[in-house]
Amino acid sequence: MEQLKVGEKDRFVFAAAGLEHGHINGMVGGLLEAGACCKWVWDPDPVKVKAFLEKFSQAKAARCLAEVLEDNEVRMVAAAAIPADRCALGVRVMESGKDYFTAKTPLTTLAQLEQAKAACVRTRRRYFCYFSERLRSECAIYAGELVKKGAIGRVIQVLGLGPHRLTAASRPEWFFKKQLYGGILCDIGSHQIEQFLYVTGAEDAKVVRSQIANYAHPETPELDDFGDAMLVADNGASGYFRVDWFTPDGLSTWGDGRTVILGTDGFIELRKNLNVATDPAGDHLFLVDKSGEHHLEASGKVGYPFFNQMIRDSLDGTETAMTQAHIFKAAELCVRAQNQAVRLS
Amino acid sequence: MEQLKVGEKDRFVFAAAGLEHGHINGMVGGLLEAGACCKWVWDPDPVKVKAFLEKFSQAKAARCLAEVLEDNEVRMVAAAAIPADRCALGVRVMESGKDYFTAKTPLTTLAQLEQAKAACVRTRRRYFCYFSERLRSECAIYAGELVKKGAIGRVIQVLGLGPHRLTAASRPEWFFKKQLYGGILCDIGSHQIEQFLYVTGAEDAKVVRSQIANYAHPETPELDDFGDAMLVADNGASGYFRVDWFTPDGLSTWGDGRTVILGTDGFIELRKNLNVATDPAGDHLFLVDKSGEHHLEASGKVGYPFFNQMIRDSLDGTETAMTQAHIFKAAELCVRAQNQAVRLS
Repeated sequence: MEQLKVGEKDRFVFAAAGLEHGHINGMVGGLLEAGACCKWVWDPDPVKVKAFLEKFSQAKAARCLAEVLEDNEVRMVAAAAIPADRCALGVRVMESGKDYFTAKTPLTTLAQLEQAKAACVRTRRRYFCYFSERLRSECAIYAGELVKKGAIGRVIQVLGLGPHRLTAASRPEWFFKKQLYGGILCDIGSHQIEQFLYVTGAEDAKVVRSQIANYAHPETPELDDFGDAMLVADNGASGYFRVDWFTPDGLSTWGDGRTVILGTDGFIELRKNLNVATDPAGDHLFLVDKSGEHHLEASGKVGYPFFNQMIRDSLDGTETAMTQAHIFKAAELCVRAQNQAVRLS
Repeated sequence: MEQLKVGEKDRFVFAAAGLEHGHINGMVGGLLEAGACCKWVWDPDPVKVKAFLEKFSQAKAARCLAEVLEDNEVRMVAAAAIPADRCALGVRVMESGKDYFTAKTPLTTLAQLEQAKAACVRTRRRYFCYFSERLRSECAIYAGELVKKGAIGRVIQVLGLGPHRLTAASRPEWFFKKQLYGGILCDIGSHQIEQFLYVTGAEDAKVVRSQIANYAHPETPELDDFGDAMLVADNGASGYFRVDWFTPDGLSTWGDGRTVILGTDGFIELRKNLNVATDPAGDHLFLVDKSGEHHLEASGKVGYPFFNQMIRDSLDGTETAMTQAHIFKAAELCVRAQNQAVRLS
């Protein structure tokens, strides 16, 4: 639970630029909790900027993106742009000598991936991504610790369910245009693929089958309301995930996200956002091993070490929070899963 | 819960022949509860026959299989033979003018499937199969009723987890020989495939990806300790299931079997054998729909209508319990899933 605040001598100044998705609030909040300082906010839409400043009053509205990028005090730009624009923004940020911290999905095409990789090499800056369904989930972080300790032996499969509530009326136009949001496997599937790589400890994997569908939303034909995929990691572990936009109105939260990690000596089930029909609070971890069945409530016990680690990585050139290779491999696999998906409906 | 006992005028006499798997006890028990009469038991192994007679004292040990098959009073033969032998036994039973009731998996090769189909046509008898993970699961039966009533709208995906405890020392030799047990997708995968067809109401489906592995049992190299598969039904619904032999010693029962049924208007989760770390009793059904989250305990409330229905089907020539086409389609898909499986480890 310990949050190593960034000390005054390491004062870490960042800006928020790109407020298209609400994830920006979690990203900024996490950075502030870790002791960073939000100097600027920028977005072409003044309504979004105003709403941001109401939440984060320490920031100041920039007149243009250049004003942010030209400020040498700013070390990182956090952004939740339209998914298809995330890479271009990231390259521009890195070209200005700052690290980039984007909402997931990190990017939407293989061409963008090459541009992002090249920009990292050229600028020596970092392209961080906020995979919030792991990084902002105490039970998921705890599961990672247990797996690393060998609590369930060798991980042989990771299964993820990532249902989300659509609330179509609240969504911007780009949300329904495939070229802009990237498709469901690329978008919310990115959480799942990142978790799969993390939990299995794999450096590479193949998407061996992926599927998309629009089962029930003919009014928005470019929306994938369903997607699933199977992956096989370079270490032999396998993965399956399903993502969808079918969370029913009666669920007390936005989605009954689950992860089941099967090991040779036990298994872990995460009920991330609630324990359905039992407890509206999230962060439930169920561990079954040789000794018995254990229900561990991780909320408030584990914390979110990612933000501190990312700031230290940015300051020190380390890769503690997440390696660049891991982020780009996750990005690559979501794009591949989407590109090769068979359409079911 | 009402069990329509078979009346005296419809006295339903059956025999048990083939005691290789403990499923025979559930099959015979279910028939007896439904009012049938077990006249004979036969198995080449006198030890198994003795153990059977201790449980079911109304039966009499036959001297040979022919003695059972030549008895015109016997209308059905229930059997849990070695999987690879189930079809040949079934054909012999049907040739003798009786219906056949086999433990799952119904058969292990496509050639056997053709023989079984031809025998059904030739003899006009039936080849029933006991898919116990649905038919002996009150929550699964209840879920079927809810789905039929439209409680979750159109079913778009069925996801099944079928972990089992290995207890290798208790298993017979055939259990570890692939040609005899048929492979994990054909064997315990058959429950999953049958449920998928049932819940989606599909008449046909394609196995679009299937995988097997032996991750942790090098001492029995022909054992698949892991398998999974994706299916797409003729009505556009999709399915995924995972089966494995990795139930940890600490679990209070043989496996934490789950089924998640995703519909356009809600979802159902079944925790069939226990509510892990919460309740050792099984038959938990979680329904989330427009109105809220509901935890329904199905145990003792739904019963097992299958056995009565099967007896009536046998007596009346109806197909209420299960159509022959459904049984053979499930059989075909498990064999195909196994035959085309990619080996991961």
